[in-house]
Amino acid sequence: MPSGYNYTVTDTADFPHPEFDPKDSQPAGWLDEQELAAARGSLPLVYVDAVPVRVDDSGDVIAVGLLLRVSREGVMTRALVSGRVMYHERLRDALLRHIEKDLGPVALPQIPPSPQPFTVAEYFPTPGITPYYDRRQHAVSMAYVVPVTGDCQPQQHSLDLAWLTPEQACSESVQAEMYGGQGVLLRQAMAHVGRLS
Amino acid sequence: MPSGYNYTVTDTADFPHPEFDPKDSQPAGWLDEQELAAARGSLPLVYVDAVPVRVDDSGDVIAVGLLLRVSREGVMTRALVSGRVMYHERLRDALLRHIEKDLGPVALPQIPPSPQPFTVAEYFPTPGITPYYDRRQHAVSMAYVVPVTGDCQPQQHSLDLAWLTPEQACSESVQAEMYGGQGVLLRQAMAHVGRLS
Amino acid sequence: MPSGYNYTVTDTADFPHPEFDPKDSQPAGWLDEQELAAARGSLPLVYVDAVPVRVDDSGDVIAVGLLLRVSREGVMTRALVSGRVMYHERLRDALLRHIEKDLGPVALPQIPPSPQPFTVAEYFPTPGITPYYDRRQHAVSMAYVVPVTGDCQPQQHSLDLAWLTPEQACSESVQAEMYGGQGVLLRQAMAHVGRLS
Amino acid sequence: MPSGYNYTVTDTADFPHPEFDPKDSQPAGWLDEQELAAARGSLPLVYVDAVPVRVDDSGDVIAVGLLLRVSREGVMTRALVSGRVMYHERLRDALLRHIEKDLGPVALPQIPPSPQPFTVAEYFPTPGITPYYDRRQHAVSMAYVVPVTGDCQPQQHSLDLAWLTPEQACSESVQAEMYGGQGVLLRQAMAHVGRLS
Repeated sequence: MPSGYNYTVTDTADFPHPEFDPKDSQPAGWLDEQELAAARGSLPLVYVDAVPVRVDDSGDVIAVGLLLRVSREGVMTRALVSGRVMYHERLRDALLRHIEKDLGPVALPQIPPSPQPFTVAEYFPTPGITPYYDRRQHAVSMAYVVPVTGDCQPQQHSLDLAWLTPEQACSESVQAEMYGGQGVLLRQAMAHVGRLS
Repeated sequence: MPSGYNYTVTDTADFPHPEFDPKDSQPAGWLDEQELAAARGSLPLVYVDAVPVRVDDSGDVIAVGLLLRVSREGVMTRALVSGRVMYHERLRDALLRHIEKDLGPVALPQIPPSPQPFTVAEYFPTPGITPYYDRRQHAVSMAYVVPVTGDCQPQQHSLDLAWLTPEQACSESVQAEMYGGQGVLLRQAMAHVGRLS
Repeated sequence: MPSGYNYTVTDTADFPHPEFDPKDSQPAGWLDEQELAAARGSLPLVYVDAVPVRVDDSGDVIAVGLLLRVSREGVMTRALVSGRVMYHERLRDALLRHIEKDLGPVALPQIPPSPQPFTVAEYFPTPGITPYYDRRQHAVSMAYVVPVTGDCQPQQHSLDLAWLTPEQACSESVQAEMYGGQGVLLRQAMAHVGRLS
Repeated sequence: MPSGYNYTVTDTADFPHPEFDPKDSQPAGWLDEQELAAARGSLPLVYVDAVPVRVDDSGDVIAVGLLLRVSREGVMTRALVSGRVMYHERLRDALLRHIEKDLGPVALPQIPPSPQPFTVAEYFPTPGITPYYDRRQHAVSMAYVVPVTGDCQPQQHSLDLAWLTPEQACSESVQAEMYGGQGVLLRQAMAHVGRLS
């Protein structure tokens, strides 16, 4: 982890939206910011990570979508789609919600039929215990490769969405722009789809 | 295994079509029928099994497609999409080829990005060694759940393609119409997608 | 586990509600009971489920271990090993801790090298959303099949540990004694290891 | 393995081409060498690959075992355990057989209870179609991470068995000594167990 890391993933967008109806599978969440902060210091939180990809007719991954953001310190970073699973929300609904939140409402993701993730990323608030790090919290994140077939537009917190080949995504220069272990997670995703380089 | 089992899966359709160009990822196979018969008695063959499903926007399986066929003895049977992987053919190309062969050219299957199957079905020519049985051969079949989004039409060897709910597909009456362990394989698929009942 | 990690195993707190709650195994971690109760109503909790098995030299499952308990109402129930992941605890350490807590200190579990679970059981406080139900909370539980090679002794909250064949474990009579969807989860485990019946 | 199953382990036939062929491990089964050579040119063969590892009590991989061999040209190579699945042999029995053949009879491998591989390596006789290459044949290899707990001794065709940390195994110098894509496969294994670097 580079020193000076002070980048938090999707903070604002991750807070509950009280206008959501729980029956819509996008429940409100019941914690205010203070309570969530307290829980963050005492419980592991449930997260999902999505690696958005473009595939060909045979399902082979031809491109990986990475969000481009600028940290508080003005450093350019690349990120996966990642976010919290809310109370009474299914993993698959959380995946869909976060992908639409980050890639727009017409990304048309193909959420995997199985809940079996390709790995579980355990983000620890202490660096070095696992390859993943989140200074704010202990998050246990089920990670999925998600083909998207529609038009993707970066939303609110992102400058851009870049489509890279698997080789580019695994390259040192791109890996150097990813934080909290998401570079490792991305390469694990490429290993899973047979496109590690 | 019910006695009187004399049903062979996709026999004719499974033989190589010499008009295929190897460069199209549907290579000809190089064995004539006699040679293939000989190999079948001495080597395990590589197969793929596909469980075609309809999913909703969250990826949840809402229906399973089963092929309806009539055996030589006039018994109604239900079958998954299944077939041999040919020489110099990738698994994902074999999956695509067999799905289009059985469900038609506009089934629009979403071949999974990862080659990791949900299970490997080992069809033995001797019943009872594994749950899978194929009197003709020893086949090692990598099995995948494959969402299809297009129009599916049963082809040549099938009377019909029936879409059943996961619950119906796991029911005793449907299971009784499946052979060679494909009923077990179907329930394993439903277990994998969280829809076992 | 990092040195200096000082969770307290408050075992009695693990089973506040011995009636139909197969997943009553959550040590306090850093929250007192009141705070945990509050979090339970507003955040999904991270859990692990373990299906303890005996395997032969080829890794084939020959027996499944189920905990036998008696509910407050005097009803016999069977349960998997299940429990909460604590703050700053890795999944693999949580698995080890819960297996030793339920099967004793010399069970010698073979914790899987990969964090990829065979499925994720989403226990909802509302029945019917998923196959899993926990009236107390929303728990997201990563589920693993764990071979144990040592001497297993049921601990404190269990009357017995019964070793059943995969066929017996999937039978209707055993399934009828499992609650909260753990019967389904057990059959998913058997599907995963190729022993569904 | 069914009783009466009398394969002959013709070990010398296993390594006809000791130069850059990491997968030279195919016992004859029921085919003589000529027939096997013919089948090799016309059918994909079924293989298994095993990545032998040492794990700690929590299942975390602490070392990877690589076979050290010298090619005909005197070049040092490192290889995984790899070999053909024979007619009427289960995958798990083939895994056990090849591990004992390469690591000795008291390696005490923990064959995984599930047949689900972490990936399928498709070795093509044409380079560049997949990351895996075998000039002799098209082999479809189901790959597993296998903890070994006993004493491992390199057999006949290997000079040594080296235990490396996951970091060393992924290093450029070690990767440069692996052939046919086994370096990629090894890193996929490390990705699967959360130890990619």
